[in-house]
Amino acid sequence: MESRYTYNPSMPLVVQKYGGTSVADADRIRNVARRIVDTYNAGNHVVAVVSAMGKGTDELLSLAGDVSQTTYPRELDMLLTAGERITMSLVAMAIQDLGVPAMSLTGSQAGILTTGRHGQAEILEIKANRVREGIEEGHVVIVAGFQGVDPDTKNVTTLGRGGSDATAVALAAALPADLCEIFTDVDGVFTADPRVVDDARKLDEVTFEEMLELASAGAGVLMPRSVEFGRRFNIPIHVRSSFHEGDGTWVKEETMEQAVVRGIAHDVSEAKVTVYGVPDTPGVAASLFEPLASAGVNVDMIVQNVSQDGLTDISFTVPSASADLARLEAEAVASAVGARGVSIDDTVGKVSVVGIGMKTESGIAARMFRILSDEGINIEMISTSPIRISCVVSQEAVDAAVEALHAGLSVGQVSVS
Amino acid sequence: MESRYTYNPSMPLVVQKYGGTSVADADRIRNVARRIVDTYNAGNHVVAVVSAMGKGTDELLSLAGDVSQTTYPRELDMLLTAGERITMSLVAMAIQDLGVPAMSLTGSQAGILTTGRHGQAEILEIKANRVREGIEEGHVVIVAGFQGVDPDTKNVTTLGRGGSDATAVALAAALPADLCEIFTDVDGVFTADPRVVDDARKLDEVTFEEMLELASAGAGVLMPRSVEFGRRFNIPIHVRSSFHEGDGTWVKEETMEQAVVRGIAHDVSEAKVTVYGVPDTPGVAASLFEPLASAGVNVDMIVQNVSQDGLTDISFTVPSASADLARLEAEAVASAVGARGVSIDDTVGKVSVVGIGMKTESGIAARMFRILSDEGINIEMISTSPIRISCVVSQEAVDAAVEALHAGLSVGQVSVS
Repeated sequence: MESRYTYNPSMPLVVQKYGGTSVADADRIRNVARRIVDTYNAGNHVVAVVSAMGKGTDELLSLAGDVSQTTYPRELDMLLTAGERITMSLVAMAIQDLGVPAMSLTGSQAGILTTGRHGQAEILEIKANRVREGIEEGHVVIVAGFQGVDPDTKNVTTLGRGGSDATAVALAAALPADLCEIFTDVDGVFTADPRVVDDARKLDEVTFEEMLELASAGAGVLMPRSVEFGRRFNIPIHVRSSFHEGDGTWVKEETMEQAVVRGIAHDVSEAKVTVYGVPDTPGVAASLFEPLASAGVNVDMIVQNVSQDGLTDISFTVPSASADLARLEAEAVASAVGARGVSIDDTVGKVSVVGIGMKTESGIAARMFRILSDEGINIEMISTSPIRISCVVSQEAVDAAVEALHAGLSVGQVSVS
Repeated sequence: MESRYTYNPSMPLVVQKYGGTSVADADRIRNVARRIVDTYNAGNHVVAVVSAMGKGTDELLSLAGDVSQTTYPRELDMLLTAGERITMSLVAMAIQDLGVPAMSLTGSQAGILTTGRHGQAEILEIKANRVREGIEEGHVVIVAGFQGVDPDTKNVTTLGRGGSDATAVALAAALPADLCEIFTDVDGVFTADPRVVDDARKLDEVTFEEMLELASAGAGVLMPRSVEFGRRFNIPIHVRSSFHEGDGTWVKEETMEQAVVRGIAHDVSEAKVTVYGVPDTPGVAASLFEPLASAGVNVDMIVQNVSQDGLTDISFTVPSASADLARLEAEAVASAVGARGVSIDDTVGKVSVVGIGMKTESGIAARMFRILSDEGINIEMISTSPIRISCVVSQEAVDAAVEALHAGLSVGQVSVS
């Protein structure tokens, strides 16, 4: 034992993350333990970040709903963090059953320091000494995902959606680890959503920059903030299936081959707000978007029409959940600046094509617009970045748009430049 | 709000404890919240210690059993502490629903420092600053029972059976509180087990000393260590029902009236071990009980027969769960010292009569033996303290012994001295 399970600074350090479906019952927990031990025995130090078991978080939420109709954020976070606590101790037991030393740490014990915004806290810093000590003692260290502690109040916090991924990548950056593996219930990142496009293909590689654009454009496999942690600290992320051994998708600084269009993402969870008949005077945009920002509304695309007769229309998209709030704020501003009115459309969708090769290859936008036009799909808004073009279309046209673009743009094809 | 829910140093501070059955579902949690708020609104600051919901701990244990057949103490404690975490956050929500500020704290956050013995940790000290700060901010503070933290390793620990009571009384001592209320599923402390004796009566008062003897002799309503905390720091303990408002039993330094026999306790969870034909030489008892102590066997009563022909028999009782271990240790010693052999009897029971008045009134032992004799019950072992007499009898005679003693000894009757 002594010689086998000791710290070896020359061994790679891998951070793995297992989501809720991967640890949904005792059998799956033992499978995860086996996988962790295989990684360990292959000559790696391992830190594993785990989520609550299967529907664990939903069950706790329903319990809270039975007790009270009101949300008390501090106590809700205290409640929800019981979920990962249960998983992490069970995984640590199952690993020890396989003869490998293991210990679990809560977010707080692992030094995950966050802002105090309950339910949506952001990781500020990771003081990973206890994790490092655990590794140096020869342990596999299991860390609760999704949770942390506000260093000012010592209150327990949760990170919100995709929080366990963020824990894993941020922890990998802090330790630092050589690699972060995100185990999930899909095989990796695809050229388009396989539920929409039959011949969507799994990507072997994608750059951080592309993944950030794909994630922001609706590809659900990783949340943008996790990708951003990986990018900032240059930690390669391997997104792979927890159900088989095959390679998934590597997200990294640079890929072997540059694709013109790496993938197509879509998003039907946004609404379009239009303020029309706005007097086109300096500062009018600021007077609209400042109150929206203060109200916490996350504005995505913004388009301002060419002014006619000193009046213009300003359209923007927001998450559907914020649509009512956005409308209220926009109506207040519209009335203050003398605009004609506000309309809202929550039957829109967004289709985005993303590829690092677009930096050097022009003409993709024109081809995209032509393909949509040939399908009879009307483009309502357009926005671009150096490696992305997004079009807002009607929600019912989204699937057809994704299919046509996937077929017409040679997605994943290597650029010849 | 400001004026109503602020700290008032002249208001009494009450620590309440609610066990698992009191918080078994959402309805009961709301009832507990109502009870806490009533206490608060009656002009008290309140700290409430809560256990895991109903079968919560059993469910977590069964989950651990599904994952592994081996017990990993550190991880098991991490797992089990999720139980109180769930209760305490739900209770804090339900209290806030009633308009009273509340916050929950884990054992670690509440400063419950313990030994490192997982599953059976002992409270060493309580650093109650966060609890005090919570009270001074006008909060009802909900504290997780049964759990603490080892200050050396920072590992989470659990206290073992009756641990939430111990948390409550120790916290009341540390704050200090004016009073500790233990809410339970019985009405208080009875003159005998009401399941055995039909006309057993609830006691209004009992001294710490008597309660300590009753608890040690098998009265399950409070564990000895909780009583000992109350006695040492002179915190009155009110044991009362969580299902109605009526008074329960006050456990305190001195009672208004002294009873000769306050109550009768019995215990059928012990086994009797006899080492017979032991050469009666100096040091032979030590050579037997030292290895038992080292093996962690908790020896209760010890009786050594009068020596005949230089040989004696030594009998002692141990918890049934330790009987096999005790037999092994005793057999090793028996063979080393040349004793004839070891026998074990796990069909014994113990009946104890307890009363502070026995300090001054003699003859209770003689009356006890006569009553048992009249019932045809054979006494196998006897032990006494200044306020207790215990007899080991056959397990099948225990109920009859308790009934006869309860009827014959005027239990609860005030001494005329």
